[in-house]
Amino acid sequence: MKMTLEEIAKIIDGEIEGERGTVIRGIGKIETAKEGDLTFLANPVYTKYLYTTKASAVIVNKDFRPEKDVKVALVRVDDSYRAISKILQYFHKEPEKTGIDSWAFVHPTAKIAGDVYIGPFVYVGENVEIGKGTKIYPHTYIGDNVKIGKDNLIYANVSIYHDTRIGNNVTIHSGTVIGSDGFGFAPNNGKSFKKVPQIGNVIIEDNVEIGSNTSIDRATMGSTIIRRGVKLDNFIQVAHNVEIGENTVIASKTGISGSVKIGKNCMIGGQVGIAGHLKIGDNVKVGAQSGITKNVKDGEILIGTPAIPAQNFRKSAILFKNLEDLYEEIKRLKAEIAQLKSLKNE
Amino acid sequence: MKMTLEEIAKIIDGEIEGERGTVIRGIGKIETAKEGDLTFLANPVYTKYLYTTKASAVIVNKDFRPEKDVKVALVRVDDSYRAISKILQYFHKEPEKTGIDSWAFVHPTAKIAGDVYIGPFVYVGENVEIGKGTKIYPHTYIGDNVKIGKDNLIYANVSIYHDTRIGNNVTIHSGTVIGSDGFGFAPNNGKSFKKVPQIGNVIIEDNVEIGSNTSIDRATMGSTIIRRGVKLDNFIQVAHNVEIGENTVIASKTGISGSVKIGKNCMIGGQVGIAGHLKIGDNVKVGAQSGITKNVKDGEILIGTPAIPAQNFRKSAILFKNLEDLYEEIKRLKAEIAQLKSLKNE
Amino acid sequence: MKMTLEEIAKIIDGEIEGERGTVIRGIGKIETAKEGDLTFLANPVYTKYLYTTKASAVIVNKDFRPEKDVKVALVRVDDSYRAISKILQYFHKEPEKTGIDSWAFVHPTAKIAGDVYIGPFVYVGENVEIGKGTKIYPHTYIGDNVKIGKDNLIYANVSIYHDTRIGNNVTIHSGTVIGSDGFGFAPNNGKSFKKVPQIGNVIIEDNVEIGSNTSIDRATMGSTIIRRGVKLDNFIQVAHNVEIGENTVIASKTGISGSVKIGKNCMIGGQVGIAGHLKIGDNVKVGAQSGITKNVKDGEILIGTPAIPAQNFRKSAILFKNLEDLYEEIKRLKAEIAQLKSLKNE
Repeated sequence: MKMTLEEIAKIIDGEIEGERGTVIRGIGKIETAKEGDLTFLANPVYTKYLYTTKASAVIVNKDFRPEKDVKVALVRVDDSYRAISKILQYFHKEPEKTGIDSWAFVHPTAKIAGDVYIGPFVYVGENVEIGKGTKIYPHTYIGDNVKIGKDNLIYANVSIYHDTRIGNNVTIHSGTVIGSDGFGFAPNNGKSFKKVPQIGNVIIEDNVEIGSNTSIDRATMGSTIIRRGVKLDNFIQVAHNVEIGENTVIASKTGISGSVKIGKNCMIGGQVGIAGHLKIGDNVKVGAQSGITKNVKDGEILIGTPAIPAQNFRKSAILFKNLEDLYEEIKRLKAEIAQLKSLKNE
Repeated sequence: MKMTLEEIAKIIDGEIEGERGTVIRGIGKIETAKEGDLTFLANPVYTKYLYTTKASAVIVNKDFRPEKDVKVALVRVDDSYRAISKILQYFHKEPEKTGIDSWAFVHPTAKIAGDVYIGPFVYVGENVEIGKGTKIYPHTYIGDNVKIGKDNLIYANVSIYHDTRIGNNVTIHSGTVIGSDGFGFAPNNGKSFKKVPQIGNVIIEDNVEIGSNTSIDRATMGSTIIRRGVKLDNFIQVAHNVEIGENTVIASKTGISGSVKIGKNCMIGGQVGIAGHLKIGDNVKVGAQSGITKNVKDGEILIGTPAIPAQNFRKSAILFKNLEDLYEEIKRLKAEIAQLKSLKNE
Repeated sequence: MKMTLEEIAKIIDGEIEGERGTVIRGIGKIETAKEGDLTFLANPVYTKYLYTTKASAVIVNKDFRPEKDVKVALVRVDDSYRAISKILQYFHKEPEKTGIDSWAFVHPTAKIAGDVYIGPFVYVGENVEIGKGTKIYPHTYIGDNVKIGKDNLIYANVSIYHDTRIGNNVTIHSGTVIGSDGFGFAPNNGKSFKKVPQIGNVIIEDNVEIGSNTSIDRATMGSTIIRRGVKLDNFIQVAHNVEIGENTVIASKTGISGSVKIGKNCMIGGQVGIAGHLKIGDNVKVGAQSGITKNVKDGEILIGTPAIPAQNFRKSAILFKNLEDLYEEIKRLKAEIAQLKSLKNE
């Protein structure tokens, strides 16, 4: 891939400060980019590298004002992160795969549309339907009666249990499991447990992306539902009968217990735990490692275990660190009061 | 599947309030069930849906007293959750698989009993033994010298390392790894590390269920042991030489460090961490996200990081939230004491 | 395997107290070892078993002084854990595999050196290079343009995405995913998100060991880098553009956010979370379940969420447990002050 700075500026509606004909051959991080690379500056932590980068051009925000002399060419845009993301598409070169490999197992009852890729060692079960343009990488398992829409990208070693429904433009990364049984056991006699059959399924709507090694359990009854536009990172636990609302984003290692309903446009940090049967509103933000133990209203910002409003948490955390000082202070006050009392009694 | 309410009541020893001949065609959640569905009410949070559900019948506990008029038929039982679980068996329709697929790799030295299912792309190593009625789904790896008993259900993409022993009636979900090396490294010279060979194995007794994407490491020496009736959720880390006692239940994302011994009938919440070499007694309960740093006696109920008795934790957590108020209170007291002292000296 | 105590003592430079000709046939844990077994004592918690063990010999540290009569033969060494680790090599009997199985898929453009094992159902993509002595177990996926060095051991069901670079003497356990996309999405219009293409790769240097079910994401640009000698346990999340320094050891379930740089020789406990873009120095120690929210200097020892120096955390945690007592104490002081004031005014 090769583009001039002028071509790049046109795509991202940017203003060039520097040589318009500069040829860009790759994209790099500001601290390690080399000649011929385009890079970007969004997070101020990295500003110091602007003055030393070996890149041939840097995308910056329109309002950015350097504190020192800048030698590298700049391209000014409204939002440098979105702009670099746009240019990355042009330099993205994932291998293009097509066709149904002769070492794939496809059950004769499966309905496979055109333009698909089904790699070696893929297993496609009975009555499965796979839409046009969908790519399924090696070693992926598609159980019976699964319906998969168009233009999905399912990487290697994914396990999709029977009856799952997947929309269009969905990406699923390796090691992820969709439709394993919910964790439901009824006590038998106070000692051992009897499994509660999990007869529901999982529904994944359009434009969802799911990271690697994530698990989404099937519903006991009905469906576990991942709504349109949801983005799940790696290692996320989605228990049975959970519903995650449109465009909600959840970072790595978060665990969502059974029957939780999460609203739209939420941002949930990593390693968060959400207790069972709770309702989380829309536009909620939850800090990393929090433990949610109560329903959460629209727009709340929470952190901590159990989670409390973010402003309380920050103050309390600082005091927690110095809890011993507080304790010492109380001891001092106690001594002073004792002294005051003894004076009184003299 | 189709049953009358009368047939259902007979199975779960229930009393019908409504039309005995009502035909049930499916099972649904109370809030989304449709006509022809049976549903249940166990958690009071869902009581409000009883008055509006479209289901044709609801299983409720004997002592349940509705606060409003109920239009739907009721079936009263001793334990509504156990009752629905029993009925779910009848509506459970997982595809039945049998036979050894011609695309399975089965080493000639392996001993395979009758009535098994070994799917396409399954790998069965040297000297493996697989008992009657066991089902192994596609892409599962069974290493050399593994012994697997009867009537087990091992889903797709499971990895079972050499020398593992698995009893009867065990279920293992996709992505789970049994027998990977324990995390043991001896410092070489204060800088790099040398691997400690892990020559032990994993033993899984009867009636165990293991969720998806869980890892159980082999022992350094001897065995990592999962006792009869244990239920492990998804993403559980069981380190080398751990032993988990009978009928203990562990929720998702909990991590158990090396050589920990856990007793019988414990209930351990999600995202808990247990430090190495600890002994956890029988009938212990641990709240979600706790960190266990000391031995735990039989019957203790703990929560927090480090874990403390549940009643202390709840009180301390409320005070933590308002730690700033406590701090302000101390400042006020300090000022008052200063004032008292100055008066004294006047 | 069979060795005399004399042969064993020679290997580990040990002094025998007991019969030099004793024959050792296996290795066991001190509490469950049987006749003919060698065992060891390193952790004082297990000392009590020394007096009752059925093992035929126990490796102990030179300075160990038993409190009771010891019947079993002893072998005294400088470091009993390192010594047993050395002997374990001799009793380690993992099945030796060689050759390229006829049921492996190897793309004609791949370059495979001699002495390799490529098991059934392994997928090797275009332009892949695999060095001498490397073993790849069944169901492992090697994407296009991956370069793998010599003497690596890659277990079953591993997924290695395109463009990954792996050095020599690297071990990767089952279920692990190398090179899945980083979690990068640019807000589209305040509601939905647009994927940021992840065009970088993952580099794994020599002598690295990676546990089961771990995920290492590819870089957005440039490389996610795991330096020489790093040891990663199971379920570790390594986000895009992270760099982990030489010989750093990380325990299970820890999550490292995007662009974090971790130094050399660090020891990071289990279930730790590290926020994005932070710099962690060399020789840092982080306690289990901590949350790192700030840069960390060389040699710091931290614990807690947010993480604070270990000595502060321990004191504060004890006070947190008894926060209610503190609160009661303040109430008492308040009452006493009120009383003093009223006396004053009399």
